[in-house]
Formats: sequence, C-alpha cells, structure tokens
Amino acid sequence: MNEQTIFFKNPVFVMDTATIVGPMETDGPIGKYFDKHVDDDILGQKSHELAESAFHIYTIKFLMNKAKINAEEIDLCVSGDLTDEIYGTNFAMRDLKIPFLGMYNACATFGSALITASTYVDGGYARRVICSTSSHFASAERQYRFPLEYGGQRTPLSQWTVTGCGATLLNNKFGKVRIDCATIGKVVDYGVTDANDMGAAMAPSARDTLVKHFRGTGRRADYYDLVLTGDLGEGGSRILKALMKEEGYPLGDNYSDCGILIYNRMAQKVEQGGSGAGCSSVVFNGFVYKKMMSGELKRVLLVPTGALISKTSTLQGQPIPGIAHAISFTTEG
Amino acid sequence: MNEQTIFFKNPVFVMDTATIVGPMETDGPIGKYFDKHVDDDILGQKSHELAESAFHIYTIKFLMNKAKINAEEIDLCVSGDLTDEIYGTNFAMRDLKIPFLGMYNACATFGSALITASTYVDGGYARRVICSTSSHFASAERQYRFPLEYGGQRTPLSQWTVTGCGATLLNNKFGKVRIDCATIGKVVDYGVTDANDMGAAMAPSARDTLVKHFRGTGRRADYYDLVLTGDLGEGGSRILKALMKEEGYPLGDNYSDCGILIYNRMAQKVEQGGSGAGCSSVVFNGFVYKKMMSGELKRVLLVPTGALISKTSTLQGQPIPGIAHAISFTTEG
Repeated sequence: MNEQTIFFKNPVFVMDTATIVGPMETDGPIGKYFDKHVDDDILGQKSHELAESAFHIYTIKFLMNKAKINAEEIDLCVSGDLTDEIYGTNFAMRDLKIPFLGMYNACATFGSALITASTYVDGGYARRVICSTSSHFASAERQYRFPLEYGGQRTPLSQWTVTGCGATLLNNKFGKVRIDCATIGKVVDYGVTDANDMGAAMAPSARDTLVKHFRGTGRRADYYDLVLTGDLGEGGSRILKALMKEEGYPLGDNYSDCGILIYNRMAQKVEQGGSGAGCSSVVFNGFVYKKMMSGELKRVLLVPTGALISKTSTLQGQPIPGIAHAISFTTEG
Repeated sequence: MNEQTIFFKNPVFVMDTATIVGPMETDGPIGKYFDKHVDDDILGQKSHELAESAFHIYTIKFLMNKAKINAEEIDLCVSGDLTDEIYGTNFAMRDLKIPFLGMYNACATFGSALITASTYVDGGYARRVICSTSSHFASAERQYRFPLEYGGQRTPLSQWTVTGCGATLLNNKFGKVRIDCATIGKVVDYGVTDANDMGAAMAPSARDTLVKHFRGTGRRADYYDLVLTGDLGEGGSRILKALMKEEGYPLGDNYSDCGILIYNRMAQKVEQGGSGAGCSSVVFNGFVYKKMMSGELKRVLLVPTGALISKTSTLQGQPIPGIAHAISFTTEG
C-alpha cells in the first residue's frame, strides 16, 4: 500500500455488469444505458425496503444469466445498501444463497465493495465475486429525512436518491475492463450538519482520497479519460473542483459526477442531482462500463462518495462526516 | 476457496488485541481477562451512541499503545457495530483518521471483519490491519426493541447486549497466534420472527457454516481445543448442538458460546446470555487470546453469529435471517 493505494498484481477483470433502475433514472439522459427499466418502483412488494431487496435480487440474477454463471459458481457477494442494518441486501442474500460479506460506507459502499472484492479475486481467495449496491428514493427519504406522505418541501441543496441496483461480476480470467489499483479513503469531517446538503459534507473526503490517489500513483487527473465522483451533485462537485485546484491537482473537463450524469437536473427537478448507494453503482455498471467496452473510454477513475449520516446522528445534532474510495479501471495493457 | 473456506498462504498473525467493557461484563465470570473496565457506560458523552463511539476510539488507541504502533503505521481499519448506519464506528473513524472499510453483518461483523482483514494482510495489500467491533446495551435496546425508559419486561428467551469493544491487530510478521483458514457464511432464514429470540434465529446459520467448514477442511469439532460461537446464548447453543448431531458433526465438551461465557446467567439476570457485535469481539480479544498466549488453548474455531434484524423489518413482520462466519486460530506450525 502506498499512500492508501493498493496495486493489484494479477488481473482483476470485470466479467460483466447488470443494472436495473426506476422511472426517474429511465427518463434521465443516460437512461438507455441501463439494462432493465421498471415503471413501478414498488415491484409488487409490501414495502419500499422489500422492493429495494427485490431490485437487488433481480439485478444479481440478471447478471448471472448474462454471464451464464449459476449461484454455485459465485464464491462471494460483497454488497450493501442504505437501509438501516442493510435490510434490503440481507433479504436479497437470503434468497440468493451466496456467501456474503455485508459492507456499509453509506453511498461510498460500492467503492468499498469493489476494492474488497478485488482483493479476494487478486489474492486468489475467490474465483468469481459479485459487488452490488442498491438504493431506493422512498426507503431513503423516510429513513434519513421525512416520510414521503408528509409532503415536505425539498430544499435547493438536496439531492434525489437513485432508485436502482447495479452489480459487477469480477473474476481473474475473462474481461476487457480491469481494475489496476484502488485507494481506500479515510473519514473526513468538515462539520456540515445539514442532512439536505450532502454534497458539501462529502466534497472534502473526495478531495482527501483523490489527492492520496494522485500522490500514491504518480498520476494526475489528465491520466484518466474520465474522473467520476459518486454523488456530490452540482454543488458538491463545484466545491471539489475548487478544493482540487487549491491542492495543485486541478480537475478538467474530464471530470464529472454520477449524480450529475444520471438526471436532467432542471427538467427532472432533482435540485443538485442524484445520490444514494445505487448512484455510482448504476452509472458505472450501466453507462461507464458500456463506454469502456465500446472503446470510447480507456482509463476511468471512479470515486464513490459517502455521507456518513444516520437519523440518530442527525437528531443528536451531529455533523455529517464523509468518506470516499477511488478505483482505477482500464482497458489497456 | 473450498466449500466457502479460504486457506491463507502466508502467516496472518495476531500482533496484539485490546478490549474495553462496561460494568456488567466486568462483573461476569471472565471479567478479569478484559484490558479496561469502565464503571460508567456513558463515558461522559451526550448519548449512548456517542458513548459507543468513545468505547471504539479508546479500544483502538489502547491497542496502538500496547503494540507501540501509531495511527500512520496502520494501513486499514475493518470495523463495524450495530447502530443504524454504524454511527458509532463512523464517528470513531473520524477521530482516528485511519483508512476505513465499514462492515455490517450484525453480530457476525467481527467475523466478516477478521476474514476481510486477513485477506488484506495475507495478500500483501496491507501490512497492519485493525479489525474492531463494538456494541452497547443501551443503544441496541432502544434501536432494536424498546427505549430503556419504557421499562419493558425482558422475555425469557432474550439476551443481554454486551457493552464493550474489542480490537485485533493483524500483521504478517509478529505474533504467536495466527489465522490459518476461514469460512464465509451464507444468509439462512428459518422464519423466526421474535426479535427477543435471536438464538433460535441464528442457530441454523451457525450449523450451515460449521458444516461447510468441517467439509471444506476435513476437520471435525474435536480437531479444535475450543469451538466457540458468537452469541447464540443458552437456548441457541442447545439448538445448535442438536442440529450438529443430526448432521453427523456432533459438538462435544469443547464447544461453548461467547454469550454464555461472558455473564453469570442466573446471578446477572441476562436470560439466555450475552449478544451483540461486541460479544464475540471482547470474548475473543480478551479471554480466548490470552488463553492461547498462555498455551492453554492451541486451536480455536471462532464462529461469530449474526441476527439480520432491523427495527424496520421487525415492524414489517419479516423473519430474522441469520449469518455466521468461522475463523480458525492456531498457535501451531
């Protein structure tokens, strides 16, 4: 490990990916890149949490079908979501019957899952590992802020939690896209206490991880075709750009944020953009992966960002610390 | 991986451990094996969640002091707890400033943290990794069941959540105790819906993981000096013994449960025994580790068990699936 960065010695290939999203994500600018679109975000379930679980199950089953692999051939799932005690993921894993390690790093969970899964594949402990994360607008809103039935007005700095699930199948043999290195983040707290302004809460942690990544690898932002944070949204991304300029590692036109890409911010009235543990997961597994497979993107740095908030901490007046992890994908070499 | 079991190729040594516990755990039969005892489980904090966080910080700082290692020399913390969104751990990691991967597998989190940390050490991705988990009676009771102020009567099948934190420092160079292999569990659901009977909810998952471990390693229970489940309690352990006999892998006198060891069940009125993400963690890092260091125990199989419950799932009438992971420790070879 060099400045928090792990370099993988053996190939960690993306064998395939799968994504399922709800109506808002389908209507967004990159809607066509997702594998499955559902009109009804409750999926016939009795609660939004169980619906999130159903999203998770469908995504992993769809991925196994695509890759022509059955559950017995998957050594491990490294997965999580935003619901208390990762209810949605636990109940998905109950149905899938695959060995399971549960992760929680808020909306950065897809990052911690990818890095952990990569070490299992690279180290030869597992042949095939699925990383998956989901989120659901309705289960997140009522858990972190207000129940939707309350009809609270959305604040200008708020973001819209992505309804969807993305899953990545990693293995050590087949694939065009591979993970070459990754940087594990630290928790960074700048004292933001507004549960409706998560972009500002997370931007300093994205800065911290990006600086460590660039120092540890000797790379700069222009090494990559795309540097993509998880869910800073419009405001948070602006903060990050200012911070990175200050650090001497400016982010150029090749920088974007999954939360910005997924919605048409003005037309869809999502304020600062998308968020949620499913945000970076569906944007990577849908949009980015397909752009890498088609050759349009060769080197991508994905930086899932997480706001470490809970209803309990919010009610206790505590600030919202952030965390971010960085994963480097390449189709070269 | 063979039948869900990973065999480590390089030594994964326990460099040192640390534990801090509350008054109930201090008064229990193995109280003297814990490093630090506190009389006041609120630790001067404004909430029990922040107190849990303080337990976590003190334990890791104490461990670093014992091992004469500073925070910069720790590559990674793989940690978690039972609070919603692992509030306690997140705020500990904010203060500790060590790269962090958050885990959540309920009371089996210490198991998933140990296995994941071992792969980082064994694979050469990290030199020194801390695994830690905590729990707190007051934060758990109000989150999963009722606020303590409500004064609800405890049911005969209930367990007492351990107040404490345990941490293990793993590295690839120094130590007498090492991890030689580990088995990653699947989620198993037998339809138990009583949030006050977690032993019954978890016993089938402990059976599943133990059977896989014995099949994958060719070992039987008598290979170990001690087979120790996490927090099945008295009732859950009885169920597990019956299930394992049925499977042809009977558990003998060398079998026990951390939840049974930690309290004097009758005198301390803890019903079925201890539970919580801190239960297996303090019992291993306190009692077991010291017995292995003194030579009284040579081979130990630790099986942290988790009840995948949340307040949301309980209120929605959902069952409580279980998960268990098995980690084999040895002082031989």
